[in-house]
Amino acid sequence: MRLVSFIDAQGRVRPGTLEGETVRVIDAPDLRSYIALSPDRRSAALGGETVALRDVRLDVPVRPQRNIFCVGRNYLEHAKEGSKALGLDLKLPDVPTFFTKAPTALAAPDATLHLQARVSPQYDFEAELAVVIGTRCKDVTEAQAMDVVFGYTCLNDVTARDLQRAHLQWFKGKSLDDTCPLGPWIVTADEVSDPHALSIGFRLNGEQKQLSSTGSMIFRIPRLIAELSKGMTLEPGDVIATGTPEGVGFARTPPEFLANGDMMEVEIERIGTLRNKVDIR
Amino acid sequence: MRLVSFIDAQGRVRPGTLEGETVRVIDAPDLRSYIALSPDRRSAALGGETVALRDVRLDVPVRPQRNIFCVGRNYLEHAKEGSKALGLDLKLPDVPTFFTKAPTALAAPDATLHLQARVSPQYDFEAELAVVIGTRCKDVTEAQAMDVVFGYTCLNDVTARDLQRAHLQWFKGKSLDDTCPLGPWIVTADEVSDPHALSIGFRLNGEQKQLSSTGSMIFRIPRLIAELSKGMTLEPGDVIATGTPEGVGFARTPPEFLANGDMMEVEIERIGTLRNKVDIR
Repeated sequence: MRLVSFIDAQGRVRPGTLEGETVRVIDAPDLRSYIALSPDRRSAALGGETVALRDVRLDVPVRPQRNIFCVGRNYLEHAKEGSKALGLDLKLPDVPTFFTKAPTALAAPDATLHLQARVSPQYDFEAELAVVIGTRCKDVTEAQAMDVVFGYTCLNDVTARDLQRAHLQWFKGKSLDDTCPLGPWIVTADEVSDPHALSIGFRLNGEQKQLSSTGSMIFRIPRLIAELSKGMTLEPGDVIATGTPEGVGFARTPPEFLANGDMMEVEIERIGTLRNKVDIR
Repeated sequence: MRLVSFIDAQGRVRPGTLEGETVRVIDAPDLRSYIALSPDRRSAALGGETVALRDVRLDVPVRPQRNIFCVGRNYLEHAKEGSKALGLDLKLPDVPTFFTKAPTALAAPDATLHLQARVSPQYDFEAELAVVIGTRCKDVTEAQAMDVVFGYTCLNDVTARDLQRAHLQWFKGKSLDDTCPLGPWIVTADEVSDPHALSIGFRLNGEQKQLSSTGSMIFRIPRLIAELSKGMTLEPGDVIATGTPEGVGFARTPPEFLANGDMMEVEIERIGTLRNKVDIR
């Protein structure tokens, strides 16, 4: 099933399922509330009202009630290119490097991202597979971890590289407004038999910049959920970005940063394509 | 004015003002909603219903809709003791080191903190002055910054030191459940003429471990708000922890970590005392 949040003709944000070119409205205040329902009650919430996809605008599929969880350097080749670009030795930790992005950074599929040139001259892209949590949980084992996954979507971890470095901790350089496009929809877990066998790519103005497989993750999804939930409660609607593969802008020779008018596309097999235009001024 | 969230006899969390030993109920769904009102509408929400403080239990005063913003190493003597304990050279950045704590970590005043021994053997305390934002804002100048401050409260940035280091980014070691006691109330900004002239201290089982002044902050509140809001929207109810002074457990010789049954007290002049007992098992 593909789940969306959409903005109707009255400007209301509503949840729905996408069936071809038709959106079937879900009877719930928002998609996060729907995800928090038990599976039985989720079925009951699938209503009869439909709207044509072409008549609505998609919004951020799910808005968690806290920051988006992210994992740094979770693809070996990306970790290598980053260390090389910064002239550092590559030292990988034994556990995932978690950081967060503020939810004010969220941006809808097809939204133009308004980035401020005076805040950073070094905006960069990062294509990532995002996991949406479906069940309140804590201390989940790797064996149980896939049971708490509701579904998957695409995320672009837009990053101000100079701020990421200057502030030492990555939060500030990762949390500017409009730097967390998410979507276009959530594909439920039952439709993705192996989330570690998906091609993941990024195109800038049509040119392929990143192309890898989610199978190249250093820490796979069950391990990420187990580590993150150790001593810390996860909640329905939480979003975990699983890291980006090699090919990002700052690690290129010479470095490439986003420019006004750029079109970004995160494409993940079986999930979808997340497109966002960049407006930098 | 002192603002609280309290749990009434029916188990509902409600906002109120504290007048001596009496709580006057605020007519708003919660304290975050009240803070988000315009000043005029805030006055109108102050109702007539009262309850005795002794008949209610205080809750976390405000629950932001995202992670708590924190600043690392914002007191020079604490930055020095930390570098020394880790055998590192002290290098201070030109800009604040921001990180976040998950809101699932929030704990109420007087609540017992349930910490898991198998998750970390190195729980530590950090007394901090927390700023509560009152106005939606972005790109705030230092000159404007104090205008967006709603009030102040106490925060204990309980930290699992081994996890803070192992995960490289500090988020995981700072975000375990029950590691962010906040309160006991919010003192509105008009009652704190100079937030940089307050004594701030921490007592463990009655013994003074930290004692400093908020005047010793490296980056003061206007600078923190200006840096944080640069390119990033702040919202009413957001909480910014402003860093801890010297005297934390891991930097002592020998290092001291929290033990089962410990009583922690964060005390800040003109704000109040935040007490939490530790249950580690």
